[in-house]
Amino acid sequence: MTPAWIETLDAADPLAPLRREFLLPDGLIYLDGNSLGPLPRRTPEILRRVVEEEWGDDLISSWADNDWIGLPQRVGDKIARLIGARPGEVVAADSVSVNLFKLLAAALSLRPDRRKILFEAESFPTDLYMAEGLVDLLSRGRDGSAAAYRLQRCSHEKILDEVDEDTAVVCLNHIHYRTGYLHDLAQMTAAAREHGALVLWDLAHSAGTMPLGLNDAGVELAVGCGYKFLNGGPGCPGFLYLAKPLQEAARQPLQGWMGHADPFAFEGSYRPSADLSRFLCGTPPILGLVALEAGCDLVLKADLGQARRKARRLGDLFLDLVDGLDPALGLEVACPRDADRRGSQVCLRHPHAHAVMPELIRRGVVGDFRPPDILRFGLSPLVLRYRDISRAVEVLEAVVRAQVPPE
Amino acid sequence: MTPAWIETLDAADPLAPLRREFLLPDGLIYLDGNSLGPLPRRTPEILRRVVEEEWGDDLISSWADNDWIGLPQRVGDKIARLIGARPGEVVAADSVSVNLFKLLAAALSLRPDRRKILFEAESFPTDLYMAEGLVDLLSRGRDGSAAAYRLQRCSHEKILDEVDEDTAVVCLNHIHYRTGYLHDLAQMTAAAREHGALVLWDLAHSAGTMPLGLNDAGVELAVGCGYKFLNGGPGCPGFLYLAKPLQEAARQPLQGWMGHADPFAFEGSYRPSADLSRFLCGTPPILGLVALEAGCDLVLKADLGQARRKARRLGDLFLDLVDGLDPALGLEVACPRDADRRGSQVCLRHPHAHAVMPELIRRGVVGDFRPPDILRFGLSPLVLRYRDISRAVEVLEAVVRAQVPPE
Repeated sequence: MTPAWIETLDAADPLAPLRREFLLPDGLIYLDGNSLGPLPRRTPEILRRVVEEEWGDDLISSWADNDWIGLPQRVGDKIARLIGARPGEVVAADSVSVNLFKLLAAALSLRPDRRKILFEAESFPTDLYMAEGLVDLLSRGRDGSAAAYRLQRCSHEKILDEVDEDTAVVCLNHIHYRTGYLHDLAQMTAAAREHGALVLWDLAHSAGTMPLGLNDAGVELAVGCGYKFLNGGPGCPGFLYLAKPLQEAARQPLQGWMGHADPFAFEGSYRPSADLSRFLCGTPPILGLVALEAGCDLVLKADLGQARRKARRLGDLFLDLVDGLDPALGLEVACPRDADRRGSQVCLRHPHAHAVMPELIRRGVVGDFRPPDILRFGLSPLVLRYRDISRAVEVLEAVVRAQVPPE
Repeated sequence: MTPAWIETLDAADPLAPLRREFLLPDGLIYLDGNSLGPLPRRTPEILRRVVEEEWGDDLISSWADNDWIGLPQRVGDKIARLIGARPGEVVAADSVSVNLFKLLAAALSLRPDRRKILFEAESFPTDLYMAEGLVDLLSRGRDGSAAAYRLQRCSHEKILDEVDEDTAVVCLNHIHYRTGYLHDLAQMTAAAREHGALVLWDLAHSAGTMPLGLNDAGVELAVGCGYKFLNGGPGCPGFLYLAKPLQEAARQPLQGWMGHADPFAFEGSYRPSADLSRFLCGTPPILGLVALEAGCDLVLKADLGQARRKARRLGDLFLDLVDGLDPALGLEVACPRDADRRGSQVCLRHPHAHAVMPELIRRGVVGDFRPPDILRFGLSPLVLRYRDISRAVEVLEAVVRAQVPPE
């Protein structure tokens, strides 16, 4: 792992040209694209045009003339290409949390006789919170004689053992936000289906980094995030995926006017749209959707098979370099070493992680601290160079060494 | 109503300088600020800075360093000033539809023994649809022996007669989207309260056009729109208001991580924030919130008492001019003539309304067609001049005359 060898890796990287499609501050090593993807180069001008010309000049007519009204589906169809879904199987709308609520409720509508919702205990918390909110709501005003919905938590290793004939839906984080653990989409989906249970996947940390092949994997329900590896900007809409065969029977309670069969007829009762638009709710957030579209357009330029291979190599390189450090520094690998089970991130454990991360950031290496002791580094394969990893570990070593009292 | 007199009105208008704070296309008479408020002059530069500097340069650190994380509350506090609420009683988040769902569910949590939700039959449809979705969800898995929640519709004139001891919440449109009918906030709230019922107000068409004095009027729950008279841009977040005394006991099911008492502790169970933040859900949509803040800052420059007086006069002028037209044109006034009961809009009925509106728009007078036969004209008091109204009615006369076959 000489500097020359690292240079060779960068020189041979087929994705290297894509880095120029992002606007990155000089000298910054940004290992936090899994929290907030960096700004695509084309996005500022696209947003300027939408704000000044579409909003400022065309005003209300933009809903039709500039197809604002079609953005949730149009962006959804682009995301569908990125995750291996058909057109009409994805919409971009609301937040990941709200989309998860819709799909959880939809899953219960598709399995009306089942009462159990199964979650990973280590799930990204907002997913669990939304499920708690749904179950709590469903238990309101009940008299106790009807079987109650219940939310069961289980470690991700053993969760399949808990799937039974009463399980309506299992909610799984495709890649765990803290450890980077990567589930097998097809295998887990098929295993749950043996018991008639649905699987709802949270793709927040995988969409845009690897081929997902949702259709081929038999995935039926999924949500994902727009502002991480899809580079849609802070708080831009999330997305939801529902496989075509399930769409007609699925009902969800956040049935706003944008999900109505004829929103502008202003009818007095809800009639769900015949297609996935029934999973839309309020007026689409245009600025966020436009930025998300620009982010997706950039990711669509990449071969996601290459992206996956590169992210694995970036991770392997990161861990190899860490393995070469003085054990006295106290850094432990906290993510899967097996690249097949590791998402586009590496995580290390250190007793002073909470102090190490701010100092790393001060020195231009940006990752995340996750309580209690995790240093998390996102590995955006479209953005990063191998030399960034090598430099990041150099800085990490220096920062951690400064934390360790000399003997 | 000579041109000279109209000029006098404009010359004496204390709000006239605010028009220059908007970027309006030359020659356009924009009577659709109640669908989409026009672009504030300062907004493009503010958005450019947020996109290029805060997202592009500062990246993830902007959540803390540029206070992205505080935007829902900061913008909420600005809206609170516009609607007569205290700091901490408003948050900007999600869509109006989603906020209505949260507050309806919260109202039921505050009146746990009551089962009736009362709506205006003529309510803006998405409000009704969301209520249908909630009631449908609450009835799932029930065994029929527990009293079911029910949604009852009633005309707005008679709705108070239907409030009873089983009514948890009455949902009212402060200003009706089609007719412009304006409810008395304080009177309706007090009347419902006599029966122990809560009132949930939809302020979509009033916030930003008049003093609302929610606290003084005893209003307890309200939602409102950001992209109409608050000029926050297409699909920007809505807001919700919950009076301080009700906040601690109110629960809502869309309990995402942003509503948690400690979102970044990543705890495994939901603990609601002690304050109104418990009504937040997913990651805040920064671009929409920033644009909404710029829109609110502009409205905060206005004296809303003056705005209300001007909107009344603009409406009176519009109706007086229409009254002066040839009755053979077939235009009928479809909004209240009494300015005390009319919001910042006028509505006319015409058998060919669906053809009249596109032609008006082609000639630079932009309003809305609302089925089956309504021409709707929004009267943004911060934007419009009296001469715009006079010119709009001239064009309207010419367009409608062209629709009427000569005798």
